[in-house]
Amino acid sequence: MQRTGQYTIEYNNPPFIIGFASVVGKKEGEGPLKEYFHKIENDTKLGCQTWEQAESKMQQEAVDIALSNSSINSKDIHIAFGGDLLNQCISTSYNIRNFSIPFLGQYGACSTMIQSLLLSGIAVESGCAEKALAVTSSHFCSAERQYRYPLEYGGQRTPTAQWTVTGSGAVIVGKDTNGIGIRHCTIGKVIDMGVTDMNNMGSAMAPSACETIKSYLTDTNTQPDDYDLILTGDLGKVGSDLLMELLLKENIDISEQHNDCGKMIYDIEKQDVHAGGSGCGCCASVLCGKILQKMYKQELNNILVIATGALMSPTATQQGESIPAIAHLVHLQNS
Amino acid sequence: MQRTGQYTIEYNNPPFIIGFASVVGKKEGEGPLKEYFHKIENDTKLGCQTWEQAESKMQQEAVDIALSNSSINSKDIHIAFGGDLLNQCISTSYNIRNFSIPFLGQYGACSTMIQSLLLSGIAVESGCAEKALAVTSSHFCSAERQYRYPLEYGGQRTPTAQWTVTGSGAVIVGKDTNGIGIRHCTIGKVIDMGVTDMNNMGSAMAPSACETIKSYLTDTNTQPDDYDLILTGDLGKVGSDLLMELLLKENIDISEQHNDCGKMIYDIEKQDVHAGGSGCGCCASVLCGKILQKMYKQELNNILVIATGALMSPTATQQGESIPAIAHLVHLQNS
Repeated sequence: MQRTGQYTIEYNNPPFIIGFASVVGKKEGEGPLKEYFHKIENDTKLGCQTWEQAESKMQQEAVDIALSNSSINSKDIHIAFGGDLLNQCISTSYNIRNFSIPFLGQYGACSTMIQSLLLSGIAVESGCAEKALAVTSSHFCSAERQYRYPLEYGGQRTPTAQWTVTGSGAVIVGKDTNGIGIRHCTIGKVIDMGVTDMNNMGSAMAPSACETIKSYLTDTNTQPDDYDLILTGDLGKVGSDLLMELLLKENIDISEQHNDCGKMIYDIEKQDVHAGGSGCGCCASVLCGKILQKMYKQELNNILVIATGALMSPTATQQGESIPAIAHLVHLQNS
Repeated sequence: MQRTGQYTIEYNNPPFIIGFASVVGKKEGEGPLKEYFHKIENDTKLGCQTWEQAESKMQQEAVDIALSNSSINSKDIHIAFGGDLLNQCISTSYNIRNFSIPFLGQYGACSTMIQSLLLSGIAVESGCAEKALAVTSSHFCSAERQYRYPLEYGGQRTPTAQWTVTGSGAVIVGKDTNGIGIRHCTIGKVIDMGVTDMNNMGSAMAPSACETIKSYLTDTNTQPDDYDLILTGDLGKVGSDLLMELLLKENIDISEQHNDCGKMIYDIEKQDVHAGGSGCGCCASVLCGKILQKMYKQELNNILVIATGALMSPTATQQGESIPAIAHLVHLQNS
């Protein structure tokens, strides 16, 4: 591996995505991407006693399907990278407890999927692992009560608010000779523009997406139209508009290539999700649903995925802190 | 890099520890290791308004001292790995916000220092970074109110309870020709033996330390007496005794080489800390205080550090879940 430019890392013997799966909840399964998910769970609790257990089980299902679809035994996975939004990342720890896989817990808020994926790529290319696993999830019910209000309270949502996706995605990375290769990654810096509104996460995260995209394009000396798709994680409608605006100030126009998982996963008008979807499971389930399936079929061949994360906590917000954000990028290319 | 045996990773061109620092609170500064810490903060709030902000500031000081002592500019650090115990790892995110360093947030509970250190080593050896930073912290006051009771409540502590260390440690990893090299690491699996008592974390974590130590010794075909020191993170008195017992069942006797950061950092009798210290800052401040200074002076030359983490949350515990635990190991050797 080697560094390219100031912030970007190039994978020389690119690791490949050799398995993936997505599992989502009922609302996501009624949205525009329903045909792409590997499994849709109509029971919010997946038969468990709590939403936290349900989220963990959803992750476990995603891992199981990814392993099974690629005929890989969990014993052959040398390292798992993953995390989630819940305090102390319990969805992931309690999921990985079911597998005998060495585990490094990640916390990047909604950027966790790409953070885990880029580290899986580094683990495989560097020789630390023959195969690595990247996994994450979020659940509307477990997140809502932790970050905002008890569900029973029925709090009003502002127009800028996003809807936490109930979903999980798992990716297995390994060596191969062709397929979906991980070509570059750009690890983001923590950027805080002073936004304090927990109901406007898109705006808090857009500046970090802008910074990471700009760094990557500069470092690799490429243009937006070199790519079939430039996909952000969960900026939603408000954050995506702001990202366009910020990038245009830098003379970067990605309007032709850009889409956002938070805009794609729901029918924003009909499903009443205000500014769109969010949560670790948003980028994870869209990536492991529609996007990787389209790459697998070579309908997409060269894409950038930039997942953003808002790194605050309710405690920090209550103490008057603003919201620091981060964005990590991976460049995926078919070969 | 390459894999050795079933679970261990060998660094071929070993990355080196080129800078380190520890900052602790008043109680830790009155303990047996007081002469080794780089800074002792007598004000619990470090002049901040909240304990959470104070913890973040303590981390920032540790990073600043590590950079300054090694004459390294923060701009030369290509990746920072770090995390902490607070919900959404805010101590670390709000600390790293002050630096312009690409950041990958880690969550390994009290194993975070070694998790971050082993990943920093991987980043440097693989070519992802010229220099990388590993940082973590914990704070008695912020942890106690999050995990147990409000401090004002004055809850009684059981004899098996451990005292969360107020402290932070930062390590800078880079290329060098000699010094303290990172030679191997063993990434732990999530192990859950069914312990449900949040006031007996040592017992919950000892089986994972046993498993990781056994894996490492088997993989590298080495014996405990090949090492000057086998240091666990924060098993405390109860967990350390249990670890000895578990290892003896595997015919592994580390009693001559073993010590535990949770036993070292306080005078357990005089300082009324029951079973000893715990928290991310425990292993971090002892490693970056006494241990690395003794390695630097070549009074220690070949050591294993195994940091353990308990991966539950108060929510999971209240839901009746048992405590999954993990232990990561690094092998450090002078050359």
